[in-house]
Amino acid sequence: MSLRELVILGTASQAPTRSRNQNGYLLRWDADGLLFDPGEGTQRQMLFAGVTASHITRVCITHFHGDHCLGLPGVLQRMSLDQVGHTVEACYPAEGQEYFARLRHAAVFREVTNLREHPVDGEGPVAETPEFLLETRRLSHTAPAIGYRLTEPGGRRMLPGKLAALGIAGPDVGRLLHEGSLAVGGRVVTLEQVSEPRPGQRFAFVMDTRLCDGAFALADRADMLVCESTFANADAALAREYGHLTAGQAGRIAAEAGARLLVLTHFSQRYDPSDSQRLAGEAAAAFAGEVVLARDLDRIEVPPRL
Amino acid sequence: MSLRELVILGTASQAPTRSRNQNGYLLRWDADGLLFDPGEGTQRQMLFAGVTASHITRVCITHFHGDHCLGLPGVLQRMSLDQVGHTVEACYPAEGQEYFARLRHAAVFREVTNLREHPVDGEGPVAETPEFLLETRRLSHTAPAIGYRLTEPGGRRMLPGKLAALGIAGPDVGRLLHEGSLAVGGRVVTLEQVSEPRPGQRFAFVMDTRLCDGAFALADRADMLVCESTFANADAALAREYGHLTAGQAGRIAAEAGARLLVLTHFSQRYDPSDSQRLAGEAAAAFAGEVVLARDLDRIEVPPRL
Repeated sequence: MSLRELVILGTASQAPTRSRNQNGYLLRWDADGLLFDPGEGTQRQMLFAGVTASHITRVCITHFHGDHCLGLPGVLQRMSLDQVGHTVEACYPAEGQEYFARLRHAAVFREVTNLREHPVDGEGPVAETPEFLLETRRLSHTAPAIGYRLTEPGGRRMLPGKLAALGIAGPDVGRLLHEGSLAVGGRVVTLEQVSEPRPGQRFAFVMDTRLCDGAFALADRADMLVCESTFANADAALAREYGHLTAGQAGRIAAEAGARLLVLTHFSQRYDPSDSQRLAGEAAAAFAGEVVLARDLDRIEVPPRL
Repeated sequence: MSLRELVILGTASQAPTRSRNQNGYLLRWDADGLLFDPGEGTQRQMLFAGVTASHITRVCITHFHGDHCLGLPGVLQRMSLDQVGHTVEACYPAEGQEYFARLRHAAVFREVTNLREHPVDGEGPVAETPEFLLETRRLSHTAPAIGYRLTEPGGRRMLPGKLAALGIAGPDVGRLLHEGSLAVGGRVVTLEQVSEPRPGQRFAFVMDTRLCDGAFALADRADMLVCESTFANADAALAREYGHLTAGQAGRIAAEAGARLLVLTHFSQRYDPSDSQRLAGEAAAAFAGEVVLARDLDRIEVPPRL
């Protein structure tokens, strides 16, 4: 059984509130753990959420405003304290190299964990593993910013009618799926004859940005789209000025890109916690799929592909 | 009425726990606010404690291990976000200058608040105001570390018997105190005739250290001594190895220095929260004065001089 869920560590934009820590999101993707935008306090939020430094295999930073990166030193130092033995990969916009270096060496500690830096210059694939392809796109914010998309390799979906017609059942189905062909009653059946392509599961992470091509490209057919919605629709002018999205714009991105589940986060502290439903409503007015308001310490399953 | 209290923002050593954030202590001293050792998450703990960035006039860092400084970027950025208009002074061991610079510029932000850096080289006074003298001493840790002592200027304590004998009462007492002399029934009475010296209130902050002369010097006659007690007495060998104190050693410092109130903090996460009373007991076995176990978000009055 695959484990693909988002563990929400923080959801506040700019300054923390009583109920929302600064940003932080751990995407658990089978044996991988991708930590996105660790804001200050992420280390302690991990404790509350029941995740440990050893769960993290990759850190992805969208940009170097404090609420998206000040938790990095604590997380990295904790990895070494806990003697995390696997290599950890770190992606971030190349323009922020000096900030990454300062955050990595922000205090005296003995660096035990092997951290590999991947400054991202331009757009496109940044990592490919058997489990996923990780890509970035440029976003439009007040500091150089990128967003991320993670795509599972495509597979095949078995067609029960065709299997039945050929008399293939039981363990033979799995054998055919893994080996690509199977001898049945004297002739060879190929996987392509009894299945159709199944696109891989997709996760998109769109943080601080105005509406821009990159945001739509990342969200393209995402099963889960995590999207900032700093402002309510009424504050669209502010959103534009500060390089952010409104909840309605987040809904529009999800709708036009054909996403399935939209997770709203990065809420401005100007709104009362009870206003959150209003933001969800504004997104839902533009997007017919499911809309979820991220809350600290929630766990949300990445919707499986059928 | 003067306000002199310690607001406890965090009390964990090294790694935060569910009930203890990493270090952080705000000493409110009349109009001044001295923030000691802001660990990660201090910004949010301030919110829970009801203090704001504008309350901080000075930041004092003992050393550059993460649990004593990783909250600095968030605090500094919050000052600028909140447009704190007064100058903020920052003291820290000079050997940590590169760490201070990284923490100060750890993320992209517009620095609005005027921050003045005071790297401390050696020992002795680092600041003198009408309200206090701030001094440092070297401590003995695994990284270059200093401790702090804050002393109110000495005053005079009126002697009621002598006042009564001379027939001085009511507003005349205040006048004599402020003007230094007073004409009474044809002759001049001086302040010295009817009062005795009253030493100023003292606050001492002794963080990560082994037993050393500096710790005793800082604690000398402190009304409030905030002292790390990372380990229980049984782990004295570990304490020595890692450059820390046991609770019993903290008690011994308070006792030999003639301190009045001992506030224990910086507890190792190896001990169960219910073990805290054991640490208090070990300190109390060495020190006859009052022992308090610091808890996050507590406020503790600095005992007034009589």
